[in-house]
Amino acid sequence: MKNLILASTSTVHGGAYLDYLKPQLAQHFKDASRIIFIPYARPGGISHELYTAKAQEFFKQLNIEVVGIHQFKNPAEAISKAQGVFTGGGNTFLLVKQLYEQKVLEALRNRLYENMPYLGTSAGTNIAGVSMQTTNDMPIVYPPSFKTLGAVPFNINPHYLDPVEGSTHMGETRETRIKEFHHFNALPVVGLREGSWIEVKKRVYTLRGPHSARIFEADKAPYELPTDSVITVS
Amino acid sequence: MKNLILASTSTVHGGAYLDYLKPQLAQHFKDASRIIFIPYARPGGISHELYTAKAQEFFKQLNIEVVGIHQFKNPAEAISKAQGVFTGGGNTFLLVKQLYEQKVLEALRNRLYENMPYLGTSAGTNIAGVSMQTTNDMPIVYPPSFKTLGAVPFNINPHYLDPVEGSTHMGETRETRIKEFHHFNALPVVGLREGSWIEVKKRVYTLRGPHSARIFEADKAPYELPTDSVITVS
Repeated sequence: MKNLILASTSTVHGGAYLDYLKPQLAQHFKDASRIIFIPYARPGGISHELYTAKAQEFFKQLNIEVVGIHQFKNPAEAISKAQGVFTGGGNTFLLVKQLYEQKVLEALRNRLYENMPYLGTSAGTNIAGVSMQTTNDMPIVYPPSFKTLGAVPFNINPHYLDPVEGSTHMGETRETRIKEFHHFNALPVVGLREGSWIEVKKRVYTLRGPHSARIFEADKAPYELPTDSVITVS
Repeated sequence: MKNLILASTSTVHGGAYLDYLKPQLAQHFKDASRIIFIPYARPGGISHELYTAKAQEFFKQLNIEVVGIHQFKNPAEAISKAQGVFTGGGNTFLLVKQLYEQKVLEALRNRLYENMPYLGTSAGTNIAGVSMQTTNDMPIVYPPSFKTLGAVPFNINPHYLDPVEGSTHMGETRETRIKEFHHFNALPVVGLREGSWIEVKKRVYTLRGPHSARIFEADKAPYELPTDSVITVS
């Protein structure tokens, strides 16, 4: 029993924070009056307090109280009692290191199997995969492991970017990076474009939002999966 | 006593492999008849053999024989006797993991202090810094540490990219990522644009090539350093 929304990004270009997901989130958290926010990924290095205030501001519109996990003495225990959890984006290395150090990862994994509603955006979506190894982030800190929640039987690449036609930059494209990943890992990867999300209900993983997703499987040519399709790779 | 060329990229747009550095490399390796190539970073997942053949093809023009480090039973010992070393680009996580597992990192660090000529491109340049923590690469494997050669007293971001004006993509810019790095690390970072390189002679680090570099210091606004300037941050 799982119940997750895994979004590529918190914000679409020109929009306000989480605004494009508002109807879905009202439904997703309809039985929750208070949820826990995990601000560990600290985008741009902002503080846990400021980041939590941002989430609070959005969820006030849905009459849902948001408490930052950093406010609890025992974060793992807080997760074990939460009505819902939202993990925001930022740096995935930082997020995963904190999740391990605060012993939150295990507690969170257990709750995901108890049907607790979960929302992830960007790094918070990345950690729902089997490992964080298809993140786009810089390794600014050294986490004790790259293994993550495994709430879906594949990996996710959030903010998926198509190769820029006519680019003169010689750095690797996203597709090349994921191809390198597949030389050492057999796990499928879902390239999730900004504005799209994966809806997880029990064991059904459905792509939602305006875009198709790009699916990468080891030893196969990548292909497009239309929106509202069930993701069957594993 | 150090003698290094640390290039942002092996290839500039529209050019052939290493071609833009040919006069510098002829001078740099003038006393070497045979150098060792480290192909561990395997760009796009290509084999050690194929990657080494690419390096061999270029250095044949300079009458220098290239031997891949994977051909030696004892890679660390091979490094300890090398006339010169070239580390190619690809995936930095993969490169660093192999350098540790093959015990090459320590041997290579020792030789850099003995004035042995070294060439790095992209990932091979990244590892000359204090840590690999400002790489752009995907964490496709888990290295035992992010610590690298420390042949320069700062970190390097190869393939440095300026923010794309008018971009609608919501992923972090390179500058934002380095800013996040500086929330947890005090080390300066040199953003090295494609076509530029750092020339290391003894303890003097000089920026070379057509572009300025972008210098990031913790708690300071980033700034441009003109080419042919000495890099004095540490």
